[in-house]
Amino acid sequence: MKIGICPGSFDPVTNGHLDIIKRASHVVDKVVVAVLNNPFKNPLFTIEERINILKEATKDIPNVEIDCFSGLLVDYVNVKKADVIIKGLRAVSDFEYEFQMALMNKKLNKNVETMFMMTSSEYSYLSSSIVKETFKLNGCIEGLVPDYVIDAMRKKFKDAR
Amino acid sequence: MKIGICPGSFDPVTNGHLDIIKRASHVVDKVVVAVLNNPFKNPLFTIEERINILKEATKDIPNVEIDCFSGLLVDYVNVKKADVIIKGLRAVSDFEYEFQMALMNKKLNKNVETMFMMTSSEYSYLSSSIVKETFKLNGCIEGLVPDYVIDAMRKKFKDAR
Amino acid sequence: MKIGICPGSFDPVTNGHLDIIKRASHVVDKVVVAVLNNPFKNPLFTIEERINILKEATKDIPNVEIDCFSGLLVDYVNVKKADVIIKGLRAVSDFEYEFQMALMNKKLNKNVETMFMMTSSEYSYLSSSIVKETFKLNGCIEGLVPDYVIDAMRKKFKDAR
Amino acid sequence: MKIGICPGSFDPVTNGHLDIIKRASHVVDKVVVAVLNNPFKNPLFTIEERINILKEATKDIPNVEIDCFSGLLVDYVNVKKADVIIKGLRAVSDFEYEFQMALMNKKLNKNVETMFMMTSSEYSYLSSSIVKETFKLNGCIEGLVPDYVIDAMRKKFKDAR
Amino acid sequence: MKIGICPGSFDPVTNGHLDIIKRASHVVDKVVVAVLNNPFKNPLFTIEERINILKEATKDIPNVEIDCFSGLLVDYVNVKKADVIIKGLRAVSDFEYEFQMALMNKKLNKNVETMFMMTSSEYSYLSSSIVKETFKLNGCIEGLVPDYVIDAMRKKFKDAR
Amino acid sequence: MKIGICPGSFDPVTNGHLDIIKRASHVVDKVVVAVLNNPFKNPLFTIEERINILKEATKDIPNVEIDCFSGLLVDYVNVKKADVIIKGLRAVSDFEYEFQMALMNKKLNKNVETMFMMTSSEYSYLSSSIVKETFKLNGCIEGLVPDYVIDAMRKKFKDAR
Repeated sequence: MKIGICPGSFDPVTNGHLDIIKRASHVVDKVVVAVLNNPFKNPLFTIEERINILKEATKDIPNVEIDCFSGLLVDYVNVKKADVIIKGLRAVSDFEYEFQMALMNKKLNKNVETMFMMTSSEYSYLSSSIVKETFKLNGCIEGLVPDYVIDAMRKKFKDAR
Repeated sequence: MKIGICPGSFDPVTNGHLDIIKRASHVVDKVVVAVLNNPFKNPLFTIEERINILKEATKDIPNVEIDCFSGLLVDYVNVKKADVIIKGLRAVSDFEYEFQMALMNKKLNKNVETMFMMTSSEYSYLSSSIVKETFKLNGCIEGLVPDYVIDAMRKKFKDAR
Repeated sequence: MKIGICPGSFDPVTNGHLDIIKRASHVVDKVVVAVLNNPFKNPLFTIEERINILKEATKDIPNVEIDCFSGLLVDYVNVKKADVIIKGLRAVSDFEYEFQMALMNKKLNKNVETMFMMTSSEYSYLSSSIVKETFKLNGCIEGLVPDYVIDAMRKKFKDAR
Repeated sequence: MKIGICPGSFDPVTNGHLDIIKRASHVVDKVVVAVLNNPFKNPLFTIEERINILKEATKDIPNVEIDCFSGLLVDYVNVKKADVIIKGLRAVSDFEYEFQMALMNKKLNKNVETMFMMTSSEYSYLSSSIVKETFKLNGCIEGLVPDYVIDAMRKKFKDAR
Repeated sequence: MKIGICPGSFDPVTNGHLDIIKRASHVVDKVVVAVLNNPFKNPLFTIEERINILKEATKDIPNVEIDCFSGLLVDYVNVKKADVIIKGLRAVSDFEYEFQMALMNKKLNKNVETMFMMTSSEYSYLSSSIVKETFKLNGCIEGLVPDYVIDAMRKKFKDAR
Repeated sequence: MKIGICPGSFDPVTNGHLDIIKRASHVVDKVVVAVLNNPFKNPLFTIEERINILKEATKDIPNVEIDCFSGLLVDYVNVKKADVIIKGLRAVSDFEYEFQMALMNKKLNKNVETMFMMTSSEYSYLSSSIVKETFKLNGCIEGLVPDYVIDAMRKKFKDAR
């Protein structure tokens, strides 16, 4: 059985992320979506919230598991006995950063493989940051994230006031 | 069982191609290396020669099959009941061309998925063309292609004189 | 009245070209679509055929004129008393080539301005070449070009056999 | 009458910005230079100072209006009944970021169009940040910004000490 | 005698930096490695520590001098009567930033020349930041920096606890 | 004494090439401008003509030698006992191609070093091809090449008719 890991901050998950996760679920036997617990960052949603949102968003994909990790991704890949890291690429700048990461991860553990999928063209401009910025400025984010993410963001920003 | 297709001209196969094929063989259950039979191009090696060289080069990888195809890649993917096209990326220019191809193939058949692996850094400058040009100018191509490719090229160029 | 020129080979026009032409027609008062008559190239469609296809394709846009030109684009811009050249950008490689052309045209005539529009994401992979290649391999090009272009291509390739 | 909007921080305006504004003023009937009032950023010059500097810098271009905005650019474009956003592109990294913004803005309001002009080659390295950094290190910024911007910066940094 | 300057933060020096310094020492008669003393940044190692590490790392290259500078690089180049700034390029994003810097430095002093060397492919993913991040997450940085840098980092992070 | 080699087709030399050659002559002790004699290409000017034009164009730079070569550049570098290949970079696409060549040359001979200079911004769009195309279409190429190159092109094209 081939296991793929989709790592990320998912703060929050976008329809672009979900497109990659769904497509990855056709290529490997099991997809582990792994939320990075980065203590140095200041996320909008807690790890638990992000995990719950991802569970809701992927409930119709049978071969997906939601998890979180901290520390080095290559160590986590080993623990999960995964075969491949799967990442989405949107643009040239993604490509260069991801190239650097893939080579560094291969240096840290030469058995860790990374594969890339091109983001569907309708999501090529989409990122968690642009969703949050647009929402803060009262822009409509329908179609960019699942509907319950919109609800979660409304609640989060109301709580923050 | 997940089947991946590595398409290409392989005229001739380089150590960069072999690196991708080997790594792909760890990620999917079976790799089909598919030599493109392009009647509009004027290759150095015939389809049969390229297939034989690839068979020799991959004989130690149990889950690899060597084949050839003509026509649209997405039609061939269907015939082989493959799950994913696997391609190597070397540079930004590769990225853009491959991005265009992956989107076009998805348009032609929305079930056809493409995944990319980063070429190992020691092969980032390598291509079949640069091997042929260097050989023609009497440059040393050891380490760039398997040894029997060097022999095949010597024979080919001697025959051509 | 501001006049914009959309130059190109349009061999044949794609839905990506038409998207740029329509959007340009909202930004300037008149759009001149100018088919390049390049004697050094070997096009699929004649200048007359390309002009007729473009006329049919743009018949619902009132402020569009179809024309052709040979020689330097900057000279043609002068003859048409146009204010700006309008071009579509799909990718980084387009960007660099178009940047070079825009600077060269400005050198040749410092009053000639060039403006760029980003190709809509659903057409980011589309080009006249990829349409022709796909058609030759019996791929479906519906949605990539107007329907009468498909008919014209069928006729053209039948004639060629 | 076609109205174009040139949005930006202009902190401070550079000769590169002015080059784009002047050239845009030949392509549309009216250019609105819109200073972004971003409460999350910590600018060197206040909104009022930036507006005054821009008014001085563009006083010889009759069809230019200086304004400011906060919130989403697409909302501001609607309020001003503008036809197009006009932006300068310097390099590939600009291109990718601006591409993302243009697509996002089109998603937020499909009637909002963005057009790009290539920065003149003599300003291809120029940005407000590099001007400020150079000035702080006592480098000469003549030729990079209008002379009264140099005076304004001298005054600003003297006040800050 | 031709003098080249290799400027940088070197916080800490990596094997990628050392590769460029060594190769530069074959092309010019003397290489000055100049550590930037940037008061606005918060480095891991002090200027003195970085200089000492660089001295140790380059002790076998006879024509290398280690120094530090603050202020504008072009002013420092003048003081050292150097002929050329020498920098390593890893990727397209480096290329664009360095292009901007080289043009700006030429504007500030038209006699200051910059030359670039391609980073060896085995170091194409390497940066001081990625070394520090990996170390913090308990990743192995052997082969990425000289061994005494690993010792210095161990000591530095122990002191920090 | 450090020797740098500036290789190229120089068909014909442009002001962009001359800018690099002049600037290189300040960084190394001697510059060898090496015209590539490529039997597979169909140049406008013969090797002899290109050499004579380069001699005329560089007559005021004392430390420049004009030469030609065929075969592998790395072999020629050895014969000339040169220390470094010096090339101009204009754009990202140049960067990638040149990166590939520099790595390949280093593989073929690990002692051969390549250094790059950024083309001055006023020549960033310039190439021998664009000069020839413009000339053929009766465009003005003054300022793009030395005056006697214009004369040589006039003569060449008259002879061709």
